Amino acid sequence: MTAVGIDGIEIWTGKLKLDLPGTFAPEKGDDPEKYTKGLGLNNSSFPDVYEDIVTMGANAAKGLMDRKGLEPEDIGRIDVATESAFDHSKPVSTYIAGCLEQVYDGDFTHANKGERKFACLAGTQAIDDAYNWIRAGRNRDRPAIVITTDTALYARGDPGEATQGAGAVAMLIDEDPSIVELSTDQGYGSKDETDFLKPNQQFPSVDGKRSVQVYLSRMREALEDYESVTDDIELEDFAYAPFHTPFPGMVRKAALLAYRHVIRDTAHEDALADEIGRQPRESEYEDREAYEEAIRGYMDDLKTTEQYQTWYDTAVEPTLGLSREVGNWYTSSVHIARVSALRDALTRDREFVGDTLLVASYGSGAQAEIHAETIREGWRAEIEGLDIDDQLDARYDLTWDEYEDVHDVHEYDMDVEREVEEFTQPDGEFVFTGWGRMNERKYEYAE
Amino acid sequence: MTAVGIDGIEIWTGKLKLDLPGTFAPEKGDDPEKYTKGLGLNNSSFPDVYEDIVTMGANAAKGLMDRKGLEPEDIGRIDVATESAFDHSKPVSTYIAGCLEQVYDGDFTHANKGERKFACLAGTQAIDDAYNWIRAGRNRDRPAIVITTDTALYARGDPGEATQGAGAVAMLIDEDPSIVELSTDQGYGSKDETDFLKPNQQFPSVDGKRSVQVYLSRMREALEDYESVTDDIELEDFAYAPFHTPFPGMVRKAALLAYRHVIRDTAHEDALADEIGRQPRESEYEDREAYEEAIRGYMDDLKTTEQYQTWYDTAVEPTLGLSREVGNWYTSSVHIARVSALRDALTRDREFVGDTLLVASYGSGAQAEIHAETIREGWRAEIEGLDIDDQLDARYDLTWDEYEDVHDVHEYDMDVEREVEEFTQPDGEFVFTGWGRMNERKYEYAE
Repeated sequence: MTAVGIDGIEIWTGKLKLDLPGTFAPEKGDDPEKYTKGLGLNNSSFPDVYEDIVTMGANAAKGLMDRKGLEPEDIGRIDVATESAFDHSKPVSTYIAGCLEQVYDGDFTHANKGERKFACLAGTQAIDDAYNWIRAGRNRDRPAIVITTDTALYARGDPGEATQGAGAVAMLIDEDPSIVELSTDQGYGSKDETDFLKPNQQFPSVDGKRSVQVYLSRMREALEDYESVTDDIELEDFAYAPFHTPFPGMVRKAALLAYRHVIRDTAHEDALADEIGRQPRESEYEDREAYEEAIRGYMDDLKTTEQYQTWYDTAVEPTLGLSREVGNWYTSSVHIARVSALRDALTRDREFVGDTLLVASYGSGAQAEIHAETIREGWRAEIEGLDIDDQLDARYDLTWDEYEDVHDVHEYDMDVEREVEEFTQPDGEFVFTGWGRMNERKYEYAE
Repeated sequence: MTAVGIDGIEIWTGKLKLDLPGTFAPEKGDDPEKYTKGLGLNNSSFPDVYEDIVTMGANAAKGLMDRKGLEPEDIGRIDVATESAFDHSKPVSTYIAGCLEQVYDGDFTHANKGERKFACLAGTQAIDDAYNWIRAGRNRDRPAIVITTDTALYARGDPGEATQGAGAVAMLIDEDPSIVELSTDQGYGSKDETDFLKPNQQFPSVDGKRSVQVYLSRMREALEDYESVTDDIELEDFAYAPFHTPFPGMVRKAALLAYRHVIRDTAHEDALADEIGRQPRESEYEDREAYEEAIRGYMDDLKTTEQYQTWYDTAVEPTLGLSREVGNWYTSSVHIARVSALRDALTRDREFVGDTLLVASYGSGAQAEIHAETIREGWRAEIEGLDIDDQLDARYDLTWDEYEDVHDVHEYDMDVEREVEEFTQPDGEFVFTGWGRMNERKYEYAE
């Protein structure tokens, strides 16, 4: 069976930067370490006044097509995943295709365009759809482009404000892929949850505490489901474990939970028993509360073991690199975690063709999906080709007042009477230029 | 290769009815035939105050599961297609699964839930995703439920107001299906268009004239694309041709265009040449305008030929039956056209196992998709099981004043201070009960 997976990746960051310890913390009167250590974030990316989900997605897609030498007619499918859509009917993929058709000679007339929504999970679902479309034999030798794009903004003063972000990832899904091969094995954990939602509102309603619990519960269910279709897994078998990363601190919790769950009833649990005891079993406790208390104690101990720390430092910590510098990119989040892992492998000059990643995606509302990916021969050249470091360095560093202004510009319900000047100069990229007569958003390519 | 396709269908109509010739036309001072003959609509379905896209979708899905004897654990995937979503992040499928879990013992914990958006096209895209998922070998012997659900409301006084509608269709996609088998062949026509959109607004901006042109152009491209992957098609080979039906008058135009396109350079064109001449070729005309004028003349003549009329009356007119009584159901529209065709076959006691349907889906923004489906052994029992006639007969017939009230109730931005009483009594169905603390919509099952 021909391998199918991710053949190319391109990233586009919002062109502004909010410095969390340097600008955000002082304004809020907070210790900078609340952000750098607690959340694990240094900066967040923010969209300039001429940027939105369409420009960022189109810019990432153009970068991908140019690097892979693709013309519009070569593409069979364009799927966009977002939770920042500004139209209830017309999909973002049509806006993005319209942008791209401004700069290429050809067109996407016979490509299937779509849009998926499931909070931060939909990008992984769109990759799966593209994989299935190829496996089903419907692609006519054409690859799919999957674009994840979000402006993850919160209301001013919301507890989530420090975890904002804005950026897009474009991925090419194809046969005989250069970066990773996917398989048919997947695990799902899914429940109707009210942890994070946007009911007829641009900015989210969030129950932060519940959201953490829901993330962990759905991940546990997805892992159980995944193990039901594969053999029981050994976390040490995976080179990296990229998780959905709303902020790195969340992944610290999730990784510990996953580790505890996976080593249960294995030689790993036995090996740790002398040091920290065996895991509490519910039957040994009088009530749920006592059991949960014991679990928390075990987790605190587990976190300090060399066995756990080695795994975390090797397989998880390196997936957080980009997230620390850009914040939450919603649908793109797990995909920049994957890229962070591959960049770490590049830095270490790691030989890991044939090695596997354990990819754990999540969307509030809520659903987790877990699957494995196998590293392919061409991964190194693809990752070396990324210019994300240059993009991050080039971001304009906002003052607090500038941040307030640009946040207002991006708030739909805000009547921004004054003109807010752009902070950066567009250079070979798509830009938002205003509204048309049917309230449609309009775009141009700025040379 | 095992057949994959639609194994079960259930329909849920909004429980209110607006009589277009009897109530709408007199209020507007219009000739009733403007609606019955021009648009081709007698009534539109409208949601009662306790109905919305979640209740209608959940009610359709429950009907489907009960009729097929399914429990939540049997289902591997729930995908919802809608252009009436009320949440930018949390997918409607989670709300619907939450409803269903209130009445079944089991749960959908390991089912993949999703949401697709592309105007009226997304339901067909969701069926395709489910088909591909099964073909890719990822379904673990479980079927998918695809739900199309919309409240197709327009602003009061908008030209689209007469084409409103509200309803849902739930379809079971499975191996060895009872109703129709799908194939891998598809044709697409797709462009970035501003014909109908909802930019941060509940009710659509519509360019009616452009929307008709775009529908026809994308359909032509999709047909060309479809013929590029199959042999040239003969429309007479298909038992029925269900089209996306915003209103039956639109399908009259589309069918004529499709017929002209398909018979070009065939024996059918030759057979008609004595009667109406051959089709104009652009090279024979001085300019585009003269050519288009000639095309219009040919189409006017073609419409009156017995050959065309026979095809239209046999293959297209029967697909419009439900649409005439319910209006535009957006994502459900092409799927109730398919059901209308199958009901016609039932009425005629037609033996057509192995016959084919040519299904033409469309979404503004814009994209058309064309594919064929093959009728399966079990179609008759499935279609006999539908109770849609009873549902349509039971609808409450709104007066004009009542229509105005209930339209206000469903308008998000309208502060409806007064309580509007429900017009019908819920009876064994899911109902909307109000908002929770995070502005989430809440639901109960009313016995």
